[in-house]
Amino acid sequence: MPSYRAPVRDTLFVLNDVIGYGNHDNLPGFADASPDIIEAILTEGAKLAENVMQPLNRVGDQQGCTRHADGSVTTPKGFDDAYRQYCEGGWMGLAVPAEFGGQGLPYTVHSAVGEYLVSANMALMMYPGLTQGAIAAILAHGTDAQKRKWLPKMVEGAWTGTMNLTEPHCGTDLGLLTSKAVPNGDGSYKISGQKIFISAGEHDLSENIIHLVLARIEGAPAGVKGISLFIVPKVAVDDDGALGESNAVSCGAIEEKMGIHGNATCVMNYDEATGYLLGEENGGLKAMFTMMNEARLGVGLQGHAMGEAAYQGAVDYARERLQGRSLSGPKAPEKKADPIIVHPDIRRNLMSMRAFNEGGRALILLTALKSDIAHLSEDAAERQAAEDHLALMTPVIKGVLTDKGFEHAVMAQQVFGGHGYVEEHGMSQFVRDARIAMIYEGANGIQALDLVGRKLPANGGRAAQAFFRDVAEFCEAHRADEQMAPYTKALKKGLNDLQAASLWLMQNAVQKPDNAGAASYDYMHLFGLVALGLMWGRMIKAAQDRLAGDADGDASFLEAKIVTGRYFMERIMPETVAHLARISTGADTMMALPAEAF
Amino acid sequence: MPSYRAPVRDTLFVLNDVIGYGNHDNLPGFADASPDIIEAILTEGAKLAENVMQPLNRVGDQQGCTRHADGSVTTPKGFDDAYRQYCEGGWMGLAVPAEFGGQGLPYTVHSAVGEYLVSANMALMMYPGLTQGAIAAILAHGTDAQKRKWLPKMVEGAWTGTMNLTEPHCGTDLGLLTSKAVPNGDGSYKISGQKIFISAGEHDLSENIIHLVLARIEGAPAGVKGISLFIVPKVAVDDDGALGESNAVSCGAIEEKMGIHGNATCVMNYDEATGYLLGEENGGLKAMFTMMNEARLGVGLQGHAMGEAAYQGAVDYARERLQGRSLSGPKAPEKKADPIIVHPDIRRNLMSMRAFNEGGRALILLTALKSDIAHLSEDAAERQAAEDHLALMTPVIKGVLTDKGFEHAVMAQQVFGGHGYVEEHGMSQFVRDARIAMIYEGANGIQALDLVGRKLPANGGRAAQAFFRDVAEFCEAHRADEQMAPYTKALKKGLNDLQAASLWLMQNAVQKPDNAGAASYDYMHLFGLVALGLMWGRMIKAAQDRLAGDADGDASFLEAKIVTGRYFMERIMPETVAHLARISTGADTMMALPAEAF
Repeated sequence: MPSYRAPVRDTLFVLNDVIGYGNHDNLPGFADASPDIIEAILTEGAKLAENVMQPLNRVGDQQGCTRHADGSVTTPKGFDDAYRQYCEGGWMGLAVPAEFGGQGLPYTVHSAVGEYLVSANMALMMYPGLTQGAIAAILAHGTDAQKRKWLPKMVEGAWTGTMNLTEPHCGTDLGLLTSKAVPNGDGSYKISGQKIFISAGEHDLSENIIHLVLARIEGAPAGVKGISLFIVPKVAVDDDGALGESNAVSCGAIEEKMGIHGNATCVMNYDEATGYLLGEENGGLKAMFTMMNEARLGVGLQGHAMGEAAYQGAVDYARERLQGRSLSGPKAPEKKADPIIVHPDIRRNLMSMRAFNEGGRALILLTALKSDIAHLSEDAAERQAAEDHLALMTPVIKGVLTDKGFEHAVMAQQVFGGHGYVEEHGMSQFVRDARIAMIYEGANGIQALDLVGRKLPANGGRAAQAFFRDVAEFCEAHRADEQMAPYTKALKKGLNDLQAASLWLMQNAVQKPDNAGAASYDYMHLFGLVALGLMWGRMIKAAQDRLAGDADGDASFLEAKIVTGRYFMERIMPETVAHLARISTGADTMMALPAEAF
Repeated sequence: MPSYRAPVRDTLFVLNDVIGYGNHDNLPGFADASPDIIEAILTEGAKLAENVMQPLNRVGDQQGCTRHADGSVTTPKGFDDAYRQYCEGGWMGLAVPAEFGGQGLPYTVHSAVGEYLVSANMALMMYPGLTQGAIAAILAHGTDAQKRKWLPKMVEGAWTGTMNLTEPHCGTDLGLLTSKAVPNGDGSYKISGQKIFISAGEHDLSENIIHLVLARIEGAPAGVKGISLFIVPKVAVDDDGALGESNAVSCGAIEEKMGIHGNATCVMNYDEATGYLLGEENGGLKAMFTMMNEARLGVGLQGHAMGEAAYQGAVDYARERLQGRSLSGPKAPEKKADPIIVHPDIRRNLMSMRAFNEGGRALILLTALKSDIAHLSEDAAERQAAEDHLALMTPVIKGVLTDKGFEHAVMAQQVFGGHGYVEEHGMSQFVRDARIAMIYEGANGIQALDLVGRKLPANGGRAAQAFFRDVAEFCEAHRADEQMAPYTKALKKGLNDLQAASLWLMQNAVQKPDNAGAASYDYMHLFGLVALGLMWGRMIKAAQDRLAGDADGDASFLEAKIVTGRYFMERIMPETVAHLARISTGADTMMALPAEAF
């Protein structure tokens, strides 16, 4: 079983030395979370992850969840206690306003700790994760009465939340959904229909479950314009907050799935269950997107967190497993063989994971900071720029970091050889768990379309242009710096490819939308490489600066940072060329075969 | 559950129109398997795969194998009957000489049918697969008496075989193995030790299991030079072939693993079991490599077969699942949504799989033909050229086709969205089953080292030079052909990158072997792209020629072939650039961090 060590020092480096977290103490909540306090919070979160969550990770995978004949669901042994500790520690409401029982701290801090907890136990953390998504939706779209009624208990963790979108015949295309809502006349609705793939749909961790359910009010327009969002509690709540009768909602089955066994993925049946409109009538999709956008960042974080956890497992094994001798002569002549970390191809795997993980962490934290700025800043221009960044990077973080998180879980498993394929070492679980992140909250192909079709052209391309300018300015600013020149050169080359791809899209995709679809996946990954490249440029610069001054005991950490950045620039950035080449071929060949020819 | 249709027409196209199978009827066995007869054999094999093997694929995954308290192992329900049908059909000995009960047909035919059977049920086919490996080793290294004693029953399928290499502390580095052999004085040995990850180590399909076991004879030299190979039957066999006492070999446990649940992966304990030397004393590694090389081609075939099976599942789903509308306007306006095959990003997945699968099939069949020529030809020069091809392509086929087979199983799963993550549709199983092929019979990193460190420099680079010449000549021969020029241009570009990478290795890896290790994985994939590119060049040319003449009802098949080839050349070949860029960076950055810095 792999052990897990939360990378607190790296998080602090990113926050303090790279993204300038400390420059924002004018924002609400930031003053309460000064760098010292953040370090204390991260350290506490690390302990919870390492000591409470991680030991239950394999237990959860092995036991899974059990549905009983009465429709109730039992979670794996120990999950209830860990969940209780999570709630008692105040982690559920870390970034929720104090008026609803939260701690009102920055979302950036929430994301930093979230990585550790998800690395330690992804399946368990989905219960609070879904709850936080539901809290966000009620905060954004609920009436004052709804917020007062539902939020405090959810923030406390006594009630959890879910998202109910998918139906058997519709996932991506929500316009097809058929669940229906009939007005009761008293402001409430009768909700009926079947939802599938509902994470945390039924379980024994909380006394109530607040389902957010998409349904169609009788007589509503067809398609996505006729969808509304409803709050449907598992157990009725009266005006004093007391629990009443069970609602007509039940778990019909638990899905048998590839991974995240510790999370109950449910078929949910609504049979004239009482529900309450959240947000506007027929405005359900918009309201759901509030949850979806935050959820997409959360899923990107999951991909990243799985890549990090798997990487740590591979490092430990590569340092211990003795097999063969270094090509350049024995490195541990006193042992019967060298540890496999001496072999270049093992290093290739470790360095590739490491370079992505550290870049991904920086991109996630920067984007979380932009989310805080977008929500909290009083400066309209700063807010708009932050919103632009957030909108643009959400599909990139979701699509690229989950693809890579899975790829790296597979790489880490490969380092173990046959021992990676048996379940005993836990590497198979990382692969199986990480796989879902590429699929849910919009499969990665949908993220790519969102980037190319929506985010890129939005507001005349303002967000993308701002990003390109950031990269270009960074390269220009450090071009003459001899220490930085090799990195800015590689980054500039990546930017050139990205801009060429963007230009190709402008010239070819408007009249022929299939060209956009055909290019989208490669474009998303090309974009991700440049976005991670910029983070690497900034991290290398920050490390060089600190090494030139007072490294404060971090010298070997900072030197390793620079080596890892160099690996990214030398070995990973060149992939932009292949992406551009593919993008430029367009859709013709891809779409040429008639469907029956496959 | 995905259905499976054996691609008989495509196999025949490769055999008859591309690799010139019919030009070799001077070789023993080839005259008995004329194109007409081959078609009949393939059709029979297809029926066995589709109707007998495939329906048991999910059963095997769900039930797995059970070890009982007495050490006996039960396979999933129905496996015994399917295995019986396989044996009764004569498939076990298809390519084994008639004197031992086989049919003496070409290995090429065996490989063609093998793809179908493995696509249909990889886990089940491992039982005969391991047996065929053991048969090959006994054929190559056994005495006449050993061949007469062991082979006929194995060819019949009454006895199966295994390979016992791995021990808990050694897999790749066999020099570390500690299983020991003590002479009994009568020519036999007492074998003791523990072996792990033994596929088909214990089961209920056959009345005896013939284990081939690597062990160290008392007093033998240390390292790989002191390893010998032994025949260790589960049940003793007397000189008349009658079964006697049980041998001191037992299954201590079945591994819990990610996939191939239908195959019993065993911990095998040898406790002074009686064994018989196979081949020379201390020549065990060489003898084992006879099995390994064939097994590596077989594993490459598994990767390919999983990619094909997963592709077919994805195609079926993409044609049926209705979701969203085509970017270029509704394609099925009478339905509530278009089938997702209209979406470019779905096509990207399907076309990528298809282009690799068809290229992989051609490369496998060509290499199988070379294997036949290497074993059967009376022309020394032809034999040497075929042996060179075989040695060179074995790590490429194993490493590249298993990496891609897994990647494509993941792609196919992605086409299903959330429905791919639940076990019900069978797509998760393809991913979990395909994963092992990247690991066993030498993890793919080892294949890459074998290619770069052994196969490339062997005989002054003769094999690689011959391959480069083949590619260059093909490009030159068709350069002036307007229909072929776009393809030869792309292929030539790939060849240039491969030759540049080879030159870089010559100049940089001799003095600094870590540069070879650092380059090896990318080099293997770069090599694979060019090898598949040559197959595609030949397939496109063959399709064009047939379309210009008598397409014989195959016009739409041939047109689809050309489109798929174009996709390969446009979209996949450009990856060579990124591989070359990575190779050229060398080992310095990759190896720079001290082990403790990870």
